[in-house]
Amino acid sequence: MVEDAVGRRVTISAIAAEAGVSVPTVSRVINGRDDVAADTRRRVEDILALRGYRRRNSRPRDRARLIDLVFNDLDSPWAVEIIRGVEDAAHAAGVGTVVSAIHRETTSARRWLQNLRARASDGVILVTSKLDGPQREELRRLEVPTVVVDPVGGSSADTPTIGATNWAGGLSATEHLLSLGHRRVAVITGPRAMLCARARLDGYRAGLEAAGIAVDPELIHDGDFYHQSGFDGARRLLALPDPPTAIFVSSDQMAFGAFEAVRQAGLRIPDDVSVVGFDDLPETRWASPPLTTVRQPLSEMGVLAARTILRLAAGERLESPRMELATELVVRESSAPPKASRAA
Amino acid sequence: MVEDAVGRRVTISAIAAEAGVSVPTVSRVINGRDDVAADTRRRVEDILALRGYRRRNSRPRDRARLIDLVFNDLDSPWAVEIIRGVEDAAHAAGVGTVVSAIHRETTSARRWLQNLRARASDGVILVTSKLDGPQREELRRLEVPTVVVDPVGGSSADTPTIGATNWAGGLSATEHLLSLGHRRVAVITGPRAMLCARARLDGYRAGLEAAGIAVDPELIHDGDFYHQSGFDGARRLLALPDPPTAIFVSSDQMAFGAFEAVRQAGLRIPDDVSVVGFDDLPETRWASPPLTTVRQPLSEMGVLAARTILRLAAGERLESPRMELATELVVRESSAPPKASRAA
Repeated sequence: MVEDAVGRRVTISAIAAEAGVSVPTVSRVINGRDDVAADTRRRVEDILALRGYRRRNSRPRDRARLIDLVFNDLDSPWAVEIIRGVEDAAHAAGVGTVVSAIHRETTSARRWLQNLRARASDGVILVTSKLDGPQREELRRLEVPTVVVDPVGGSSADTPTIGATNWAGGLSATEHLLSLGHRRVAVITGPRAMLCARARLDGYRAGLEAAGIAVDPELIHDGDFYHQSGFDGARRLLALPDPPTAIFVSSDQMAFGAFEAVRQAGLRIPDDVSVVGFDDLPETRWASPPLTTVRQPLSEMGVLAARTILRLAAGERLESPRMELATELVVRESSAPPKASRAA
Repeated sequence: MVEDAVGRRVTISAIAAEAGVSVPTVSRVINGRDDVAADTRRRVEDILALRGYRRRNSRPRDRARLIDLVFNDLDSPWAVEIIRGVEDAAHAAGVGTVVSAIHRETTSARRWLQNLRARASDGVILVTSKLDGPQREELRRLEVPTVVVDPVGGSSADTPTIGATNWAGGLSATEHLLSLGHRRVAVITGPRAMLCARARLDGYRAGLEAAGIAVDPELIHDGDFYHQSGFDGARRLLALPDPPTAIFVSSDQMAFGAFEAVRQAGLRIPDDVSVVGFDDLPETRWASPPLTTVRQPLSEMGVLAARTILRLAAGERLESPRMELATELVVRESSAPPKASRAA
C-alpha cells in the first residue's frame, strides 16, 4: 500500500494492472532495480507519476540537511528573489540551500543529477522546465521530494507546483489603467508558449471586455519577456496612427525597454503614456519614474517551496499539488490619467 | 614544519616563541583541543593567522563536494552576479554551491557555522565582513579553506581576498568626464568606513588633480551606496548656485537615485547633466538612458573565488593572499559633453 503526494491510497497491484505488468515488476521499478526492460520501466514510471505515487516512510534517515535549488540560468532578474525566499526558510530550519544553474544544457543537467545523488539532498526545488524526460525519471528514481516553482508557467502534472495568479494580475493591471480613464490600452505579451504569458494576456482581454471595450489586435504586441522586445513593442505601438495612451507590459524587464522607447520618442512617462509592468523586481523602485507594476510574490514563493520540501521530506502530505500565491497591483508613478482627460 | 598560505615555511617553535607559550600548547591550538585557556588560544591563533599559517595535508578526505557562499543579505543587487560566477566554476568541478545569508545577526551566523560543520564543506567564500572575532576563530578551528570576496572593501589580513581595482575605477570615471569637457564634476561617495568607497573617492581626486582642477568640497556628497542617498545627493548638488555639469556616482544603485533627482528637477540626462555609475549591474543596460559606469567584474570575482577554494582544498599554494581584478569603464548614453562646450 502506497500513497500519492496528496495522500490518496494507491495500490501496487492497481499500478501493475494499469501498466499490464506483474506486481513484482512494479516493485522492481519502485526499488530502482536494473533488471527491468527500459520501455517497461518507462511505462510503469509514467503511471506511477501519473498517479502521483510516493512511497510512505521512504525518506532515507541520513539526508544531508540540504535543499537543491535549480535554475536554467542565474541571469533572470528574479532568480535572487527566489533564492532569498528559499534560503530564508531553509536557514531557519538548519538546512543549507545548494544553488545550481543547468544552463539549458543536457550535460549540465546530467552532471547536476550526479552531484545531487552524491550529496543526498533532502529535496529539489526546480525553477526550470528544462529537465528532459529521462532526467525527470532519474529524479523520480532518486526519490527526492521535488517541488516546481513556476513564475513562468510551465506545467508539470506529476510534481507539486507553486505559481502566482497571473490571470488576476493581468486583469488588475488593465482595470487600473481603465479606471484612470484610458481607453486605448495596449499590451506587450510574454512568449505565447508560456502559460503565464497567456494567462496575463487573457486577464488583459477580460479587463477590456468587462469595460465594454473591443480588443484591438493592433494594440497587442508579442514580446518574449526580455528588455529588447519591450523596447521594440513600445516603439511600434507609439508609432501607430492612433497610438495607445497606456501600455500594460507583462514583465518589468520589458517595461524598462518601453521606458527607453518612450524617452527616445521624446515623450514622458506618465505625462504622455502610462506604463504598468509585471513582477515587481526591486529595480522597479529605482526606475525613473518608479514603475507601477503587478507584484509577483517571488520570495514568498521561494519560502513556500522550501517549506513544502521540508514537509515532504518529513513524510507529510500536501493539501493540494498546485498552489498559487496572489499577485497584487503596486501603484507608483508610471501611471496617470491620459492627457485628454486631465485637460478636460 | 608547516607552511603559510603562500608557501613560506613556518615552524611551530617559531610560533610558540612569538606567542610566548610552549610548543605543545601551539599543537593543542592547531589541533582544535579545548584544554587551552581562551586568551592563550586567541593569542596563538592571532599569530598563526598573522603568519598565514596553514597545515600541510590537513584537508579531510571526505569532504562533501560543497562550497559555502555567505552573504550578509541577499538583497544587494550584485549578490546574484557573484553567485553566478561561483556556481559556474563550482558546477564545472562537480561541486555544489550552498548559498547563505547571515542577516547581520550573530545568532544567524552561529547557526550557519553549526550547519557548515555538519555538512563538511570543502571551503567557504565570505562576501561579508560581519563575522565577529569568535566566529572567525571558529571558522579557523574548522580548518575549512576560506576566501573573502570583497566588492565593498573590508580588509582581512588573515584570509585570501579577492577585490577589484576601486581606485583605478574612480580615476577612469573622472578622466572620462573630464575628457568630455566637464570642469564642474561632482562625486557621490560610498560610506567612508568602507575601503572601496575611499579608494573610489581618491581616484576621483587624483583625476581632478592630474587635470589641474582643485577639488571643491562642495561637490563631494557623502552617500551610503543605497538608492536614496544618490537621490538626495544629486538633488543637493543640482540646487547649488553653481551646479556640477557631471556627477560620478560611486554605485549604480545611487546612480539610479540620481536619475530620479534629475528627472524631478525637470532636467535631462545627458543633455543637462552627465552621470557615471560604478558596478555595471545588469540593470544599467535597462536604465533610461543606459548608464555609463565602471564595470566591477563581480561574476569573474566569484569564479576566481571558487577556483581559489578548490585549489586550497587540493592543498595548493596561492601566489598571493590578495588578488584584485581590473575595473573597466563602460561608456553608454548617460555621459556627453557639457551643454556649453556643445554650443561652442
